[in-house]
Amino acid sequence: MLSGYELFAGGVESLDYEVIENYAYREEQAQRSKFWVPYYVMLKWLFSLLIGVGTGLAAIFINLAVENFSGWKYAATFAIIQHSYFVGFFVYIVFNLALVFSSVYIVTNFAPAAAGSGIPEIKGVDTHGILLFRTLVGKIFGSIGSVGGGLALGKEGPLVHTGACIASLLGQGGSAKYHLSSRWVRIFESDRDRRDLVTCGCAAGVAAAFRAPVGGVLFALEEVTSWWRSHLMWRVFFTSAVVAVVVRSAMNWCKSGKCGHFGSGGFIIWDISGGQEDYSYQELLPMAIIGVIGGFLGALFNQLTLYITKWRRTYLHKKGKRVKIFEACLISLVTSTISFVLPLMRKCSSCPQLETNSGIECPRPPGTDGNFVNFYCSKDNEYNDLATIFFNTQDDAIRNLFSAKTFHEYSAQSLITFLVMFYSLAVVTFGTAVPAGQFVPGIMIGSTYGRLVGMFVVKFYKKLNVEEGTYALLGAASFLGGSMRMTVSLCVIMVEITNNLKLLPLIMLVLLISKAVGDFFNEGLYEVQAQLRGIPLLDSRPKQVMRNMSAKDACKNQKVVSLPRVSRIVDIISVLRSNKHNGFPVVDRGQNGESLVIGLILRSHLLVLLQSKVDFQNSPFPCGPGILNRHNTSDFVKPASSKGKSIDDIHLTEDELGLYLDLAPFLNPSPYIVPEDMSLAKVYNLFRQLGLRHIFVVPRPSRVVGLITRQDLLLEENGNNVTTELQSTSVRGQLNGKMLSGSTHLGHPLLDSIVVEE
Amino acid sequence: MLSGYELFAGGVESLDYEVIENYAYREEQAQRSKFWVPYYVMLKWLFSLLIGVGTGLAAIFINLAVENFSGWKYAATFAIIQHSYFVGFFVYIVFNLALVFSSVYIVTNFAPAAAGSGIPEIKGVDTHGILLFRTLVGKIFGSIGSVGGGLALGKEGPLVHTGACIASLLGQGGSAKYHLSSRWVRIFESDRDRRDLVTCGCAAGVAAAFRAPVGGVLFALEEVTSWWRSHLMWRVFFTSAVVAVVVRSAMNWCKSGKCGHFGSGGFIIWDISGGQEDYSYQELLPMAIIGVIGGFLGALFNQLTLYITKWRRTYLHKKGKRVKIFEACLISLVTSTISFVLPLMRKCSSCPQLETNSGIECPRPPGTDGNFVNFYCSKDNEYNDLATIFFNTQDDAIRNLFSAKTFHEYSAQSLITFLVMFYSLAVVTFGTAVPAGQFVPGIMIGSTYGRLVGMFVVKFYKKLNVEEGTYALLGAASFLGGSMRMTVSLCVIMVEITNNLKLLPLIMLVLLISKAVGDFFNEGLYEVQAQLRGIPLLDSRPKQVMRNMSAKDACKNQKVVSLPRVSRIVDIISVLRSNKHNGFPVVDRGQNGESLVIGLILRSHLLVLLQSKVDFQNSPFPCGPGILNRHNTSDFVKPASSKGKSIDDIHLTEDELGLYLDLAPFLNPSPYIVPEDMSLAKVYNLFRQLGLRHIFVVPRPSRVVGLITRQDLLLEENGNNVTTELQSTSVRGQLNGKMLSGSTHLGHPLLDSIVVEE
Repeated sequence: MLSGYELFAGGVESLDYEVIENYAYREEQAQRSKFWVPYYVMLKWLFSLLIGVGTGLAAIFINLAVENFSGWKYAATFAIIQHSYFVGFFVYIVFNLALVFSSVYIVTNFAPAAAGSGIPEIKGVDTHGILLFRTLVGKIFGSIGSVGGGLALGKEGPLVHTGACIASLLGQGGSAKYHLSSRWVRIFESDRDRRDLVTCGCAAGVAAAFRAPVGGVLFALEEVTSWWRSHLMWRVFFTSAVVAVVVRSAMNWCKSGKCGHFGSGGFIIWDISGGQEDYSYQELLPMAIIGVIGGFLGALFNQLTLYITKWRRTYLHKKGKRVKIFEACLISLVTSTISFVLPLMRKCSSCPQLETNSGIECPRPPGTDGNFVNFYCSKDNEYNDLATIFFNTQDDAIRNLFSAKTFHEYSAQSLITFLVMFYSLAVVTFGTAVPAGQFVPGIMIGSTYGRLVGMFVVKFYKKLNVEEGTYALLGAASFLGGSMRMTVSLCVIMVEITNNLKLLPLIMLVLLISKAVGDFFNEGLYEVQAQLRGIPLLDSRPKQVMRNMSAKDACKNQKVVSLPRVSRIVDIISVLRSNKHNGFPVVDRGQNGESLVIGLILRSHLLVLLQSKVDFQNSPFPCGPGILNRHNTSDFVKPASSKGKSIDDIHLTEDELGLYLDLAPFLNPSPYIVPEDMSLAKVYNLFRQLGLRHIFVVPRPSRVVGLITRQDLLLEENGNNVTTELQSTSVRGQLNGKMLSGSTHLGHPLLDSIVVEE
Repeated sequence: MLSGYELFAGGVESLDYEVIENYAYREEQAQRSKFWVPYYVMLKWLFSLLIGVGTGLAAIFINLAVENFSGWKYAATFAIIQHSYFVGFFVYIVFNLALVFSSVYIVTNFAPAAAGSGIPEIKGVDTHGILLFRTLVGKIFGSIGSVGGGLALGKEGPLVHTGACIASLLGQGGSAKYHLSSRWVRIFESDRDRRDLVTCGCAAGVAAAFRAPVGGVLFALEEVTSWWRSHLMWRVFFTSAVVAVVVRSAMNWCKSGKCGHFGSGGFIIWDISGGQEDYSYQELLPMAIIGVIGGFLGALFNQLTLYITKWRRTYLHKKGKRVKIFEACLISLVTSTISFVLPLMRKCSSCPQLETNSGIECPRPPGTDGNFVNFYCSKDNEYNDLATIFFNTQDDAIRNLFSAKTFHEYSAQSLITFLVMFYSLAVVTFGTAVPAGQFVPGIMIGSTYGRLVGMFVVKFYKKLNVEEGTYALLGAASFLGGSMRMTVSLCVIMVEITNNLKLLPLIMLVLLISKAVGDFFNEGLYEVQAQLRGIPLLDSRPKQVMRNMSAKDACKNQKVVSLPRVSRIVDIISVLRSNKHNGFPVVDRGQNGESLVIGLILRSHLLVLLQSKVDFQNSPFPCGPGILNRHNTSDFVKPASSKGKSIDDIHLTEDELGLYLDLAPFLNPSPYIVPEDMSLAKVYNLFRQLGLRHIFVVPRPSRVVGLITRQDLLLEENGNNVTTELQSTSVRGQLNGKMLSGSTHLGHPLLDSIVVEE
């Protein structure tokens, strides 16, 4: 078994969706009162509600802070440049630098896992430290600094991670380290329950970031969960609805002006309902071109960021925290300089004729955030088109790019300048040690070239009712499709943030083209980054070559390390030390002396047993039943997002090393098995669809005990096919009865007693 | 093995998502040229395109026909009642009766599987006759008759079925019976490929019926497929986009007036964007009440239709076609009478003051379809509120109920009358032998009580900006939620058909409440109906009792019928005759004489072999490899939606009965296996998630050959963990080489050669 997690850098561990049906689990199931299930269900829903509220509030807090910081910054800068460009520039740079420095300082010194968007990390595996309380705090405050500091990154990805953190912390009943944990809510003890909460959290994050509840549900479906069950969908749906209500309430409250600069800005929702309502067939060609451009630029973005991230990981970031801080500050300086100096070098344009009832003024009145920024332009009827997109928060810039009824607002030269500069900045910024989302930069890039194409369309098809803003929207969709390769969820998110359903088929078309073009070159952004970080994501379908391989081929270089049912402690220790496997088959002798595999024991469970020592016994024979009440399931629960125990933490005396341990009560008696000649493609499907962590490859069976078909699984709950003695309480009685008789004729007393033969 | 399909009435058969890796399959895989995969992928996408175009065109055809028939009917009736009520009534009744008769006649005599909505039948199993060409034709023309004939049913469910039929027919390369089949497109031979196409078809149907492409994707996800893979999502998405474009193009073409009465009506898309934009917290209570009402009435609807359908199945419909035809005609008469006479008995109301720029006129001008129907009212400023909803097509009625800026258009009395009558009609109509959808009747019922609640809200909260139409929309959502219990897809469909994203959180809230209330009483409409028809749908999660049962328990009453590797024909025949099992384990002797299970052979494959006879051999020893080219995979493909072969179709001579058949090349060598003491809940998950048809329950294995973990499945396509000899062509060489040497030391030559040991 050469496999193991030594290959996964950064302490990544697979999640285990499989329920470990060991004795402790069955015992606890049997002991549950009849109120347990309603309590459990109620708590699940309560947590969904709390996740929604928590994520909604976090989103509002971040948006409020960012909008206010940005508001102060731009207000101060605009006021000062009336007198001196240089002082204005200096204030602007220092303001940005302070915010970025605070962000990178928090992240590097306090919450290293808060860097980046966090989305690749929460996709189906358990990365150590990614869902801690400190990560949550670091993410929230780091986001405020990095986004408020004007870097080319967004706050949406981090918000998804924030939602996941909130969910995970709720699931483990608070943070143990900060004494916020409560016993009675800690009933979500399996990986599966925890994972479901994290899925809810991710959906809540998307719903809050984009105010797109349906998009959130779909995002969770498409990107986060590796094993989706339809009853989970309902809970995710509920969480998203709660977020929508919380965010809306807060925004209504802010309308009264209590939130400072937050108000018209913040919360990317770009209502373009005043724009183009319809499209004609001539427009499909330029739209397809936008899709192709998006595919190219998106794939290029993935490739460039891959190279840069590789370089950072191998050279730059190994040199310590200071280099990371210096790097982020340097990028902040460059970004500030470019966004200030470039508009200065651009000539002012004179205001166009605007319809009086369009609600747009040119130049915009001082103190507002909107279109037609006049920047340094002194005259009353002039504005600076580059400043309108560059010297503005990204949300406002996008709104301006998407805006309808503003033909020829931007010159092609300005758009191209902005595209090149911002694309470069986004590539360089990606991977610095600050919380960073890719959605908003992606939308910025995409809408810029989209609007460029739109300008040409407006010029060439003069008779059509074409809006440049519509093309900007399609450009944004195309870049995100080309880079992230999501389809349905991205489409719904785009529709929800622009609040315009009529463009749905066009967005679909553009997304399909850009994803297809992008797939031609490389994998999606999250997949590329996950690979680089050693996060083992499995594709949704098996590789072609697996069809011609068997299960045996996949493990042909392995040496299986088994443990006997009753093992000496010293042997267990030496097995644990000699390899890094996370699961071991347990073998016993059957009635006739033949060997029998009785189950799988996890390394983590062995470590718990070795540390607690209560189950050690003197005799090398199977234990009686008395031992079984010393543990309950929660002892075996993996502490969420901690490093877990290590063999080096176990300290045993010489005497203890000579004792024995009966593993039978603690093992998973029925892991999934496959015959050795099953094709690896089928094994892959089993593994992927059920979210497993270990599969036993076994020899071809000698006989078939029975066949299970759909009909056999259509039991009526009230016992059509089921004898009522099989209810939980009586099973427990039989269990204990058999255990007392010490029957071991099949090497596994638990199993015999569960399989009630009549 | 007492299981079998004798319990499934109506010839339902489970689908098999498992790839049967028998020799013929592997051989065919190996023989494929390098162009096969691109060709296969291209064809998949081409078919997705064709499904989209086909379903879009079918939807347009149905809508055109229905709108025109209805248009002529109402125009004629309105013209005649100016002179004589009685003649008008007579014309109206005869027109409806003729349409309904045509529908029920087509269905009963030509396409019995076209009755009903068809949605329960296409949910994850294969019901005989449900996807035939005749069913498609019957569904389309039957729908036109039943909907055009004014019955209380909709055309949306049938359209989903239509999409599925189109997809299935494409998948089998046309209809064999009608000589429309073409060989070169018949490469979709596994259940899985076919099923994927049907999923696309369903999504296309929803997309076309509601003009809701995203809703279509989600519907397919939530309702249709039992095993979802994310790469399928992309294809479904594409199909939906194609439908959206096709439908839009056709509607644009119709705007020029070439489509008769089709134009403003048809295609339920109720743009209520002029309505309520916002909501206040006081409104949440009445909205919650709507949710509760929806849950109650929806659950009641499911229960009543269950009773009536049971009664129909056991008494009425057993009496033959004539009774079915008579029943449908009787219901048509009753419906026509009620919808004509009730408005007549209602006094005319005088027109309210309407805003001049609202675009609504009262009464509506003659010859148009819209609000404020004047019916028999003679005066120019009067209208009949009951006629506005009753004496109108359902699409127009819903649009009127949803309409904003029309306060107090309906009296409470009229709405209650309509609710009671229409609810009763919908219950009675459900289950007649005509194509019938439940969406539009559900929306009618829901929007009626929704508007009633809205009237009270308008009265009590006078200060708020409340629209009755918004409450009608929420009512519609609540009834559908309470009856069908879909959540996410229904929510998206409602948003897409009303084209108003702002109400999304409200729709979510109402849906969650109504589903919760409904679930308290019974299961969803489709589940109830599927159960009744013996369609074995598996819940998404295992029943609680399964946790305490083992795999062995589920098959404890079974007697496993195995076949030896080389069987005498007469033995095979007798096994096939003696039971109704659909799969048989095949057993062989291993090297040391021990028995070994070498695979599973399907009944259907045995029948193919028995019928073709080419593989019969004289000797009772394993065959050589020469035989293996006589069959290719397509011989074993189940003809889509036909009864399949039966043992009674096989006619063999005495001599032939004495011959032998080697089953090894034709069996599935690696069905999924579970140890006998695995809990049934885990078996259930395996079965459900992978869409299986048979699982072998086997004794506990004696040793573990290897463990497969995530790491083992992270192969690089270019051979990081994989030796390149394992590519398909060389495997084939080894396969043949070994086959020629006749090695059978493990009882299964194929397997040995695939598992290349180094």
